[in-house]
Amino acid sequence: MGLTFRLLAVREGARAGVLSTPHGDIPTPALLVVGTKATVKALGPDDLERAGVPGLLCNTYHLWLRPGPDLIASLGGLHRFMGWSGPIMTDSGGFQVFSLGWGLEHGVGKIGFFPGEREPPGSGAKRRERLARVDEEGVTFTSHLDGSRLRLTPELSIAIQQKLGADIILALDECTSPFHDYAYTRVALERTHRWALRCLEARASSQALYGIVQGGYFPDLRIRAARFIASLPFDGYAIGGSLGRSKEDMGRVLEWTCPLLPEDRPRHLLGIGEPDDLFEAVARGIDTFDCVAPTRWARNGALLISPEAGGRRENRFRLSILRSAWAADDSPPDPYCSCYTCRRFSRAYLRHLFKEEELLAYRLASLHNVHFICSLMSEIRESILSGSFLELKRKWLGSEA
Amino acid sequence: MGLTFRLLAVREGARAGVLSTPHGDIPTPALLVVGTKATVKALGPDDLERAGVPGLLCNTYHLWLRPGPDLIASLGGLHRFMGWSGPIMTDSGGFQVFSLGWGLEHGVGKIGFFPGEREPPGSGAKRRERLARVDEEGVTFTSHLDGSRLRLTPELSIAIQQKLGADIILALDECTSPFHDYAYTRVALERTHRWALRCLEARASSQALYGIVQGGYFPDLRIRAARFIASLPFDGYAIGGSLGRSKEDMGRVLEWTCPLLPEDRPRHLLGIGEPDDLFEAVARGIDTFDCVAPTRWARNGALLISPEAGGRRENRFRLSILRSAWAADDSPPDPYCSCYTCRRFSRAYLRHLFKEEELLAYRLASLHNVHFICSLMSEIRESILSGSFLELKRKWLGSEA
Repeated sequence: MGLTFRLLAVREGARAGVLSTPHGDIPTPALLVVGTKATVKALGPDDLERAGVPGLLCNTYHLWLRPGPDLIASLGGLHRFMGWSGPIMTDSGGFQVFSLGWGLEHGVGKIGFFPGEREPPGSGAKRRERLARVDEEGVTFTSHLDGSRLRLTPELSIAIQQKLGADIILALDECTSPFHDYAYTRVALERTHRWALRCLEARASSQALYGIVQGGYFPDLRIRAARFIASLPFDGYAIGGSLGRSKEDMGRVLEWTCPLLPEDRPRHLLGIGEPDDLFEAVARGIDTFDCVAPTRWARNGALLISPEAGGRRENRFRLSILRSAWAADDSPPDPYCSCYTCRRFSRAYLRHLFKEEELLAYRLASLHNVHFICSLMSEIRESILSGSFLELKRKWLGSEA
Repeated sequence: MGLTFRLLAVREGARAGVLSTPHGDIPTPALLVVGTKATVKALGPDDLERAGVPGLLCNTYHLWLRPGPDLIASLGGLHRFMGWSGPIMTDSGGFQVFSLGWGLEHGVGKIGFFPGEREPPGSGAKRRERLARVDEEGVTFTSHLDGSRLRLTPELSIAIQQKLGADIILALDECTSPFHDYAYTRVALERTHRWALRCLEARASSQALYGIVQGGYFPDLRIRAARFIASLPFDGYAIGGSLGRSKEDMGRVLEWTCPLLPEDRPRHLLGIGEPDDLFEAVARGIDTFDCVAPTRWARNGALLISPEAGGRRENRFRLSILRSAWAADDSPPDPYCSCYTCRRFSRAYLRHLFKEEELLAYRLASLHNVHFICSLMSEIRESILSGSFLELKRKWLGSEA
C-alpha cells in the first residue's frame, strides 16, 4: 500500500508526524481542504499551492453523479483531471447519501427522516418522502439532481473511489444523525462494521483505505466501534458521525475513541475545521481534518483572524468583511497574515468587491481563509515539535484552555 | 504630462510603438482589459500580470456611484485600491450615462430614447421614462442603483477621474447611438466639441487627457470631428460612438478619421476587441483598444481559439466549452496557447466546471481569453516590426483580408 505514517513527537496528547502518500507528504497535524466537485470553490490549484494546502478531500457522491467515475478514470484520474498534483482523499459517498435520508442540512438540504427517528426539536421540518433507505446490502436513494433511484453498496463505493484514484479512500459507513436514538445507532453501527469487512474485501488497488469509527454520542457504542475498527487492517482510521451537540461533546467522543486506535496509524476527524475545534481535537490525538467551513465562510465574507488581529473564541476568529466599519479601512483583513490577499488588498477593497458581488471577492476571501487555516496547522505542528503546544493553545483559546 | 508615445514602425498603415505612462510602458498595438468596478471580472492582479495584460480601463460611471471617488482617493487612488501597478485608463462616464438615455444594451439595459430618435427597427422596445437628459451644461440622469437624480458635467467628469488617479483619462463626450439621425448627431457633436474645450480647461493634474472623435456613421461629421479634436492639445485621441452597423462600416469610419489625427500621438478605439476587428483597426492605424468581450465571452463559456486550433471568422475565433463534444476531451481549449488554463486543464474539466457553475470556471476561462487576446496583440506588434503584418492578417482572416 502507498501510505506510510511516521510519528515524530507526542506531547500532552498532541501528535506531530508525516503522512507520506504517492502524491507527496502531508506534515501532520493538517487540514485537507474540501474540493467537493473536483475543485475547491473559487480557487485554482495554483492558489492552493500558494496557500500551502497539504491535501484535498473530494466528495465521491457528487463526482459519482457528475461527471462520473468512468469519465474521470478515462482522463487519468482525479489528480490529472483537476490539475492538482498533491495528496487527495475521497470520502465514501455515505455521508451525503445518509444526510439525504436524515435530512440535516449539509449542502443537500433538509429533506426527510428515517423510521424511528425523532423530529429535531423546534425544527419545524415537515416529513417528506424519504430520499434514502438502508438495508443490509446497501442504501437506495434518490439523486438530488434528477430524481433517479440509485443504489450505493460498500463494494460500489470502493469501486467508484478506485476509479477516481485518490491516495486515500474511505470505507462506506452508515452515518447516523444526532437525533437517532441508542437502539437505531447500535443497529446502524453493527451494519457499518459488516460493511467495513466488505470494503476491505472489495479493495483491489494500492490506495490506502481508512475505516470509520461511528457510534454517535453513546460512549459504549463509540468504544465498541473504536475497538472493532482498530482490530481491522485499515491503513488509517477516521472518526465520523455525530459528535454530540456541543464542542465539549466532541472532546468527549475523541477521549472515548482515540486512545483505542493504533498509535502508529493516522487518525482523521471528518468534517471539523473551526480553529478552537482543531486545537481541542489535536490535543486529543487527531492527525488530519477536512472541513468546508474555511471556504464556505469565505464566500459569505467571514474572514479568519488571529488573536493578534482580534480573533477570539467569542467571534469564532472571524470578522465580517461586509461591516460598514471597514468601508474606508486601508488595513488588510489580518495584518499578521502573509497570504496574497492580506499582502495586497485592504478591507475596504474586499468590502467593495463583496458589495458589488464581484467574482474576485470569493477568490481572495477563500485564498485568505485557506492560507490562514493551513498556516495555523503548521504553527500547531511546530509547537508540538518544540514542546509549546499548550502555550499556543492558551494564546488562541484563553486561560481556560 | 506623464505620457510619451514613441512610434517604432508604420507598415501598410499599421503602427507599432511604445506608450509610456507613469505606471509603465504599453507596447502598442495593445488591448486594455476592462476592469469596470476596479476589478477585471473573475481575475486578480496576479492573473492579469501572468496573462501579460499591458493595462486596464476602468469605468468612471460605476466607480463614481460606488464606492465613490473620494473613498478611492483617500485609499491612495485606483492603482493602490485595486492592487494593480500597471497603467490604467478611465473613461469619462459619458458612455454609460448616455446609454441609459438611448437605451441600447451595454450592460445597463434598454431603457429609453432621446427626443428625435427613431425607435430601433423591430426592437419592440416601449418608450419608458427617459433616464438621461442632456443640455449645454451637462447631462442629468437617474442612477441605475437607487433611482437618485445625478448630474454629470465635463468639469465633474475630469474632477472624478482626477480623484480616481488613472494614468490616462478621457474627455466627456455625448455618445450618440446608431439610431440617432444626422441632425441630432450634428447637434450632439457640436456640444461635444464645446465640452472638449471645457475638459482641457478643467484639467488640473498631470494625467494624460484624450479627446474623443464622435460623429456617428456620417462621413462629413466624422471628418469635422477628427479635424477639430486633432487641433486641440490632447495627449491622445480616442474614436468613440457609433461605428455603423457592420464590421465593414467600422473600417470606413476609421478610414475617414485616422488619417486626420496627429501621427505622433496615440490613437485609442473605444469598445472594440474581437480578433478580426483588431486586425482591421490596426491596419487603419489604431494603437490601443479596450473591450469587455474577452471577459464577457469567457463567463459564458466562449473560449478564444487560434486559426491553428480551428478559429475562423465564421466561428468568431471561439469554441463553446459547454458543447457535449468536449465531455471527454483531454485536450486544452487551444493546444497552441501557453496560458495557465491551457497548460493545466482539459476541455473536459472546464466543461465540468461550467456545467456545475463552479466559480473556478469563470476564472480559468477569463484567464485564457485575456491571455489569448494579449498574446494576439503582441503577435500583431511583432509582425508589424518584422514586416509580416499582412501575412499574419491573412493567416487569421483568410485570403480576402
